[in-house]
Amino acid sequence: MLFRRAGAFSEAEVTAMDAALQAALGGPRGANPLVGAVVLGPDGRHLVSGFHRGAGTAHAEADAIKQARLQGINLEGATMVVTLEPCNHAGRTGPCSQAIIDAGITRVVYAVDDPHDPAAGGARTLTAAGVDVAAGLAAGEAAELNREWFDAVAAKRPFVTVHIAQTLDSRIAAVDGTSQWISSPESLRDNHGLRGLIDAILVGTETVLVDNPRLTARDPDGALAASQPLRAVMGLREVPADATVRGTDGRFIHLPTRDPAEALSLLFAEGARHVMVEGGSRILGAFLAAGLVDELIVYLAPTLLGSGTPALRDLGITTLADAQHWDWDDAGGGAVRSLGRDLRLHLRPGRTTENHENPTPGKDAAGSVTGGH
Amino acid sequence: MLFRRAGAFSEAEVTAMDAALQAALGGPRGANPLVGAVVLGPDGRHLVSGFHRGAGTAHAEADAIKQARLQGINLEGATMVVTLEPCNHAGRTGPCSQAIIDAGITRVVYAVDDPHDPAAGGARTLTAAGVDVAAGLAAGEAAELNREWFDAVAAKRPFVTVHIAQTLDSRIAAVDGTSQWISSPESLRDNHGLRGLIDAILVGTETVLVDNPRLTARDPDGALAASQPLRAVMGLREVPADATVRGTDGRFIHLPTRDPAEALSLLFAEGARHVMVEGGSRILGAFLAAGLVDELIVYLAPTLLGSGTPALRDLGITTLADAQHWDWDDAGGGAVRSLGRDLRLHLRPGRTTENHENPTPGKDAAGSVTGGH
Repeated sequence: MLFRRAGAFSEAEVTAMDAALQAALGGPRGANPLVGAVVLGPDGRHLVSGFHRGAGTAHAEADAIKQARLQGINLEGATMVVTLEPCNHAGRTGPCSQAIIDAGITRVVYAVDDPHDPAAGGARTLTAAGVDVAAGLAAGEAAELNREWFDAVAAKRPFVTVHIAQTLDSRIAAVDGTSQWISSPESLRDNHGLRGLIDAILVGTETVLVDNPRLTARDPDGALAASQPLRAVMGLREVPADATVRGTDGRFIHLPTRDPAEALSLLFAEGARHVMVEGGSRILGAFLAAGLVDELIVYLAPTLLGSGTPALRDLGITTLADAQHWDWDDAGGGAVRSLGRDLRLHLRPGRTTENHENPTPGKDAAGSVTGGH
Repeated sequence: MLFRRAGAFSEAEVTAMDAALQAALGGPRGANPLVGAVVLGPDGRHLVSGFHRGAGTAHAEADAIKQARLQGINLEGATMVVTLEPCNHAGRTGPCSQAIIDAGITRVVYAVDDPHDPAAGGARTLTAAGVDVAAGLAAGEAAELNREWFDAVAAKRPFVTVHIAQTLDSRIAAVDGTSQWISSPESLRDNHGLRGLIDAILVGTETVLVDNPRLTARDPDGALAASQPLRAVMGLREVPADATVRGTDGRFIHLPTRDPAEALSLLFAEGARHVMVEGGSRILGAFLAAGLVDELIVYLAPTLLGSGTPALRDLGITTLADAQHWDWDDAGGGAVRSLGRDLRLHLRPGRTTENHENPTPGKDAAGSVTGGH
C-alpha cells in the first residue's frame, strides 16, 4: 500500500472501480485471479473495459488496451482503473506495466497489490516512468473477489476446484456401480473443457482401482485436447502398472500420501497452480474437511436413484450448526446455469460462520440465477 | 372431441392458443389444472389474456374477462381461446360458460375437454346459447401441460406434491438429528405458503414419533394461516395421544396403511384434491417408487454435511439405466428460483424413458433458469 492516498480518488474512478470489479466476474477462477479494468479518458469518461479470461490469455489491462486499439480509441492521458496491481513480469502475456506506459496512459488506480514476488513492482515501474499511481481504492472488495486465490498464493499451494456430477439426491453411482453417465453431454463437455485449462487433475487410488479412468481432456468426439493436465493419483496403495491413467506421455504422477495438504504441496512443486480434484468421495471429503477446496462445481442431473454411492462421505460433521456453508459464485458465467438437462452450480467457500437461525441472504445469491443458453 | 373441426382454426387462433398455453404456466400446480386464456377481437387482434392462479381463485376465462372489464374492453363478438373446456359448474368461482355468454363472446376455441363429470357440459351450454364452439386446437400440448393432473383425475386420487428441504449433498438432518433449519427463512416461508393452499399434508408415523411436528401452515411470525390443511399421518403404528399433530381443531386423520395408493384413496374420500407429502424419507421413497408424485419441489441449501439422514432411501433402483428422470417445470414461477441463499427447484415426472447415452436436452430445461428476485 505504498501508493495509497486517502481521498485521492475522483468520483469517476470510484464508479470505474465498481465497473472493473463487475467486469472481473466475467473470467473463470483458477491459477490466475479474477481481474477487471476500466479505462477513463482525461475528462473522466468511460472509454473501454477489459477482464482476464484465465491463465494463458491477456491480462485485464492488456485486454482493455486491445479493445481500445480495435475501436481506434487513443489512450494518451487516460486513467487505467484496475482491481489488481498491474504485473511487471514477462510471463506468457508480457508485462502490463509496460503496455500501460506504451499506450500513453498517465494515471493508474488499482485496488490491491499483486502478492507474487516475481510480479511485484508493476507500480514501481509505472511510477518510475512518470505514471501517477494510486492504490487502495475498493481494496476490501478486490481482496474479497479473489479471497481463495490470495489464500492459495499465500500458502504456496495450487488453487483447488472440485467437480461433482450427481443426481438430485446426490448419488454419483447406482448400487451396481454404474455411473456413466449421470451428467448430460453438455455437462461432460464443460468438465472436459476445464480439464484442458487446468494444470493437474487429482483422484485417489481407489478411483483408479475401481473405475480405471483416463483423466485426459477430450473433445466431444473423444479426441485428445491440445493441452493435457498432469494426471495425479494420491494414496498409499500402488497404482497398477497397467492402469490407464499412467498413459504414455509422461504426464502421470503418483503422490504417496493420504494428506490433502501434502498432495497439494507436491503438485505445487511440480508447477501446478490449478488442480481439479475429481474424486472419489473419500478424497473429496478429505479436501473439503481440510478446507482445501476453493471452488465447487456441481453438475446436478434431474434424476433420482435413492441408493448407490453418495457424492460425499464423512466430513467429520455431526450437527447442523457445523455444516459447511458455501456462497453462490457469479464468476465465470454465473452461479447457476443450464447445461442441457442438468444444472451447473458454482460455489465458493462461505465467507463467515453464519447464524443458522437468521441467515442473511447473500447479495450474491439474489442475483446469481441466470439463464443458461 | 364432439366439437373438433379439422382445419377450422384461424392463424390468429393458433397463435392465441400458443400464448394461452404460455400464460397457463403462470399458475401453480395442484388441485386444479393450469389453464390459460386469450381473447381475440372480431378482427383477430389480441385483446386480453388470463390464467388460473390456483384453487379458490378465478378460472382463466373469468380472469381474462375481468382484465377486459378493468381495461374497459368490450368483448361483444370476441373469440375466447382457452387451453381447457370452460366449466359449467358453479363451484367456488361460478361457471365460466355463463360468464362467456354474458360477456357477449360469440366463439370459443378450446384445446381439451374437462375430464370432470360435474364440469363437463360447458361446451354444450355454450353451443346451446348460440356460441360457436371448436375444440381440439393444440390438444396434445394442452394434455401434456397438465399430464399429471389428468392422470390424478382419471385415477380419482389427489394431486401429489413432494417438498424436500436438503443440503447440496442431499441430507435432511445431521448425524445427531438436528435439522432446523437446513433451509433459508425464505424457503420455509414458501413451504408454509403452499401449506395454506393444499387440502392435506401427509407424513409417516416415524416422522411423528421422531420430530413431533405441528404440520400447520404458519406465517413468518408463527401465527396460524387462515386456511389449514388436513393433517394426515400414515402407517400402522399408533399416533401417540399427546402428539402435537393431533391438534384440537379436528383437522387430524390417521391413515392405518403403509401403501401410498391406499393413503391417497383415503384422503380423496376425505375430499382432498391436493396433498403435500412431507416425509420422512421412507414415505417419500414409497411414493416415488410407486410413481405417485406429480410435482417435486427441492429447497437446495448451499451447505454440505457429508453425513446424516439422506433425503431419500431405497427406491428399488439398482442400476443407472433405471434412474427416475424428472423434467424441469416452468409452471408457477419458474423451474429454478433463488429463495434467500437457497435454490428452489421445481420438477415434474419425466415424459418418457430417456436414452442415457444421448439424452435430448428438453426445451423446458433450456429456458427454465430464471431470476429469483
